[in-house]
Amino acid sequence: MNLNLPSIPSFGQTAAEAARHRQNRLTKPTGALGRLETLSIQLASITGRPRPRFKNKAVILMAADHGVASEGVSAYPPEVTAQMVLNFQRGGAAINVLARQAGAQVSVVDIGVNYDFDNLPGIVHRKIARGTANLRRQPAMTHAQAEQAVQTGLEVVEDHIREGVDLIATGEMGIGNTTPAAAITAVMTGKPVEAVTGRGTGLDEVGLARKIEVISAAIALHRPDPTDALDVLAKVGGFEIGGLAGVMIGAAARRVPVVVDGFISGAAALIAAGLKPEIKPYLIASHLSQEIGHRAVWEALGLQPLLDLDLRLGEGTGAVLAFHLIEAAVRILDEMATFDEAGVSDRA
Amino acid sequence: MNLNLPSIPSFGQTAAEAARHRQNRLTKPTGALGRLETLSIQLASITGRPRPRFKNKAVILMAADHGVASEGVSAYPPEVTAQMVLNFQRGGAAINVLARQAGAQVSVVDIGVNYDFDNLPGIVHRKIARGTANLRRQPAMTHAQAEQAVQTGLEVVEDHIREGVDLIATGEMGIGNTTPAAAITAVMTGKPVEAVTGRGTGLDEVGLARKIEVISAAIALHRPDPTDALDVLAKVGGFEIGGLAGVMIGAAARRVPVVVDGFISGAAALIAAGLKPEIKPYLIASHLSQEIGHRAVWEALGLQPLLDLDLRLGEGTGAVLAFHLIEAAVRILDEMATFDEAGVSDRA
Repeated sequence: MNLNLPSIPSFGQTAAEAARHRQNRLTKPTGALGRLETLSIQLASITGRPRPRFKNKAVILMAADHGVASEGVSAYPPEVTAQMVLNFQRGGAAINVLARQAGAQVSVVDIGVNYDFDNLPGIVHRKIARGTANLRRQPAMTHAQAEQAVQTGLEVVEDHIREGVDLIATGEMGIGNTTPAAAITAVMTGKPVEAVTGRGTGLDEVGLARKIEVISAAIALHRPDPTDALDVLAKVGGFEIGGLAGVMIGAAARRVPVVVDGFISGAAALIAAGLKPEIKPYLIASHLSQEIGHRAVWEALGLQPLLDLDLRLGEGTGAVLAFHLIEAAVRILDEMATFDEAGVSDRA
Repeated sequence: MNLNLPSIPSFGQTAAEAARHRQNRLTKPTGALGRLETLSIQLASITGRPRPRFKNKAVILMAADHGVASEGVSAYPPEVTAQMVLNFQRGGAAINVLARQAGAQVSVVDIGVNYDFDNLPGIVHRKIARGTANLRRQPAMTHAQAEQAVQTGLEVVEDHIREGVDLIATGEMGIGNTTPAAAITAVMTGKPVEAVTGRGTGLDEVGLARKIEVISAAIALHRPDPTDALDVLAKVGGFEIGGLAGVMIGAAARRVPVVVDGFISGAAALIAAGLKPEIKPYLIASHLSQEIGHRAVWEALGLQPLLDLDLRLGEGTGAVLAFHLIEAAVRILDEMATFDEAGVSDRA
């Protein structure tokens, strides 16, 4: 298999200029809506449309298991990955609730869960394997599987865009996946493992120390090459992380904004930016997680998160919350009256 | 006139405990939704309901003029207050756009605009006077007017609650009103004037220096008593600020949560808390404004804002944006499946 990544279009400067000009004529002091204004201009740049609106929002939630979970790096047992996939499919999880509120669809993708869902409807069946290998002992996946994970993301997002989806949030589920996320973050940002490794779903002190040891040992064993994102993904990554990297690249190639969720989605963004550095301005950082490595992710990508609510759930929850701010930004740009239209005096 | 403030009910501990218990049984690690979880528990406490939901949201936007505008403390001419009221009435302002998005009504209250709206429909006509006096030279209003402003807020909010409104955002419009807001903040928090006085709608260096001088001179002239919030309101306040203080007290008395917007709404909250200190846990801090005094307001009230988006527009825009987070918090609490319902394994 040879991964063929699509090219990323250049940023829409004309649309951005038109959006900026309009923002400055709306009935408010220039800049008074702060980040909603800059966000609206970024969205114009991404889409190439001076007054973008979004009609079909989706969260693409990729689920996979992790061999490294056997090292005791999570507070929850591995079977919870499959149980939560069924919870997503039945609509009972946090992401279902928040997506309903935001008017977004939830697309649950089995890209590598250690469970046979038997073609259950309401799940996109794209399983690469029943979980990764234990990255503490061997590479998490083969190079071919890493390519397949990214390719799967490219294909899944393309299917969504073809069906009319015009705004995408990334989400994930996978017991143990803060371990590969921290490993990727350490490798790609050059930060010490202990500076980017957190408690995940709720490890205690002993568990956290073990997790740091596992990640450090894995990096020492495999020596992933930070200039080769596929190598990093294969050695210390996860299927859902590779899949989401593909989602981000595929969306940017089609000028569809991608709202990046928490720490695991952030690690996927590091892989995506490693593969295609020009993707960065197409990404929107939804929130700053309680998981300590998340800040390093945003810094490395040059992105500033919109929300800071001490979230640490994943699933796409923070990204879907940010949909409301994105919707606000484009509605302001599109619907507000200008000074001339409203007969309001501008400043002297 | 004698202002008769309603009593504030005690916080609903039983409902809060039930909400906390339920949060810990929902299919997510305990605390993983961070501030959405604490917010849902606060909303249970306020309403006295273990699973609160909000059906009728409103932003009460009070507009008034300020005699101090003649001192050159604003980048915009005073007639913009009335022009913006007409813009609100026609639906073209930022708050109209954001309220439509949030499914909230906008109630525009003329509590002291220097313009005759001739009983124009779509405006609540409660004018106390055509703007305050110039607080640099004399008290902004009489003691009776200060009482009337608070009383007006109590009555307006009671009208809303009687009509079924169950979640309220505060908003305001008034050219020059960051000046009384900064004066109130300096007096009520004890901070130096220059530490809480910002550029408002966009003053330059010279304008900012003049604004600081005007506020300092007014405080020196009137010596408002920080232990007497009505005295502070009368001497250096504004009609919309007094009105919003009344809205906050009236809502808390009826167990209706109030989402406090930007710096001017924050100054109103300082007056409200001065009159009724037990109101503080009933208030929700929506966002941290770019206006530098806002942080001191939240610190003095012991509140942590939900959003930080460099907003500085007022009108209730930040508060209505926070409606989405409030809606998210109560939906999570109400709609998510528990571990038992979903058949998901809890942590060991």
